[in-house]
Amino acid sequence: MSTRAEKVSIAVIGAGGVGSCFVTQLASLAKSRPSPKLSLIYLAIIDRALYHQDYAPIPFDNALEELDKFGFEPPSISNIIHFLSKAPDKVVVVDNTSSQAIAESYPAFLKSGISIITPNKKAFSGSKELWEDIFSSVGPQGQGPFVYHESSVGAGMPIISTLNDLVETGDRVTRIEGVFSGTMSFLFNSFAPINGEGGSWSANVMRAKQLGYTEPDPRDDLNGLDVARKLTILGRLAGMSIESPTAFPVQSLVPQELSGCTEFLDRLPEFDDRMDKERKEASKANKVVRFVGSLDLVAQKAKVGMEWFEKSHPIAGLEGSDNIISFHTERYGPLPLTIRGAGAGGDVTAMGVLGDLIKILRQI
Amino acid sequence: MSTRAEKVSIAVIGAGGVGSCFVTQLASLAKSRPSPKLSLIYLAIIDRALYHQDYAPIPFDNALEELDKFGFEPPSISNIIHFLSKAPDKVVVVDNTSSQAIAESYPAFLKSGISIITPNKKAFSGSKELWEDIFSSVGPQGQGPFVYHESSVGAGMPIISTLNDLVETGDRVTRIEGVFSGTMSFLFNSFAPINGEGGSWSANVMRAKQLGYTEPDPRDDLNGLDVARKLTILGRLAGMSIESPTAFPVQSLVPQELSGCTEFLDRLPEFDDRMDKERKEASKANKVVRFVGSLDLVAQKAKVGMEWFEKSHPIAGLEGSDNIISFHTERYGPLPLTIRGAGAGGDVTAMGVLGDLIKILRQI
Repeated sequence: MSTRAEKVSIAVIGAGGVGSCFVTQLASLAKSRPSPKLSLIYLAIIDRALYHQDYAPIPFDNALEELDKFGFEPPSISNIIHFLSKAPDKVVVVDNTSSQAIAESYPAFLKSGISIITPNKKAFSGSKELWEDIFSSVGPQGQGPFVYHESSVGAGMPIISTLNDLVETGDRVTRIEGVFSGTMSFLFNSFAPINGEGGSWSANVMRAKQLGYTEPDPRDDLNGLDVARKLTILGRLAGMSIESPTAFPVQSLVPQELSGCTEFLDRLPEFDDRMDKERKEASKANKVVRFVGSLDLVAQKAKVGMEWFEKSHPIAGLEGSDNIISFHTERYGPLPLTIRGAGAGGDVTAMGVLGDLIKILRQI
Repeated sequence: MSTRAEKVSIAVIGAGGVGSCFVTQLASLAKSRPSPKLSLIYLAIIDRALYHQDYAPIPFDNALEELDKFGFEPPSISNIIHFLSKAPDKVVVVDNTSSQAIAESYPAFLKSGISIITPNKKAFSGSKELWEDIFSSVGPQGQGPFVYHESSVGAGMPIISTLNDLVETGDRVTRIEGVFSGTMSFLFNSFAPINGEGGSWSANVMRAKQLGYTEPDPRDDLNGLDVARKLTILGRLAGMSIESPTAFPVQSLVPQELSGCTEFLDRLPEFDDRMDKERKEASKANKVVRFVGSLDLVAQKAKVGMEWFEKSHPIAGLEGSDNIISFHTERYGPLPLTIRGAGAGGDVTAMGVLGDLIKILRQI
């Protein structure tokens, strides 16, 4: 028989786009929520950390300013774990980084009784060993330590919780399909709109970069790996054994000739005819081309790449940089359960992280 | 400081379309879940109940057969509450009925420490007093007694949990809009399809009735009250003060001349021209007519009725008897978070109820 925590300590690692939104949202939550009482005992960015040896709380309201003023060189990950494991109250670590090293330490955090919440895809889409190590280190359901990662797919949208609910209640998920990348969504919705002209592929990529929709190097979006990582996470949650995000067919939209060169964007127009041909052929079939990931859970197959859709299909009708994810299941029958909305952005991603925290607080 | 339950007792009231699916799903869950240990201590249908004075469990696997064989006249609601409140373990009541009397007893169940799960809309869309009485009777977050009612809107789809997450994490919901009735969805998708002809309104109503998509008396769908009830629930969860589901404009599609008559379906064709006119006018504007509910949370207004949508709008593109619900929020920005799928049916509704049970089991 376990007892329920009256106080919970939070450690936040990373305060960039998502992390800074999260700290603001956390401050509001801590004020509005009487129980359990929350305190922030550790806050760090890449080159600066703030904590007190006696676990005295960092004030929520100006935490980032305090970090800036009083922060010092961050301890090693093993020293962070040691520090947090000695805390008087139960501890939840919120990893808002995209660090591989921290992701690889989740099992160590969990084994020290520390729960993990993160939007970081790395831990769940890396090696199968790491996945198994993480999920064999969590405590029994409802008791913790917990690991929650709603925002690792579709930001704050209820994708992972929905898939987990389907599986846990005994539905049989047969197929998952969708547009998992905000960048790819934006690019294809403008390159191959349902009505009208879409301009050249390279012009669309350049515009997306200018508007801040791509990674600093757009090849990090165009290579399809981000989508493959998200598909790996969903596939594993649905019970598929996926060795790694490169263990299934992933179509890269980076021309092989440009994969290593420094003048990628300058030379991209040379390859516009390839994408134009794809668009034209789809159009001849009265369809539009989109970049999708799909999991066939019956045949146990995953794939990422361009596919053609009827103009009336929800994937074809996507707007802006929205994601869309459909779950085909035995109970839902011929029409899938579909969720659509913003799948990227600081505030919505942080909201997914905060939602996970609330779920843990109900159980811890 | 509270302690965690090692055993939880379940009482199931109602074993019709949803309830019988639920009992089957519950049997699977109880087998696959090691902790807390579940037992069924009460099972009832309208004229028959089964329970043992010593709280001996009813076997999950052939519970309905046992009820059929050994059931006796059900006790009064106050006697059920008395019986359950003396149970040695924590108790969760699953109300799979649509009974007003049981709905009105939720506060009494909760005050006796008994948690409630239900797809029954009555309690949450009735008087404001009952709503307030229910939610002032639940225990502190994470401790219970709990009340969960995911399936009261959109069956098993994550509608209520998503709205609660948005509110609890501090997002500002500005507008909720959607098709909330599977019957209305089916009727309008076939009466005014995006492409092609739709036949007469009365022919569509008759076909829907034949296919089992309507209530025994289709007026119970066409009067819009079912949609108004769901809107009332979502509006209240989003913080709006709604007195009752008849306290805002609800368009009934039952011609006033036919509201009391016995030959409703026979006489419905006399009124086909009204609906045909609506369809034609929408069509002239290059739109289609749909039956929607909407909540404007800024202006604090709710309404239910026919509206016209561009053919590319997700509401226009709905298929079959699918529901679709969109949440417009400050954090999601110009494009809403949208959830679409089957919003009715025994198995998907029961799955929403079972999902609620799993959430309670993590906390109780």
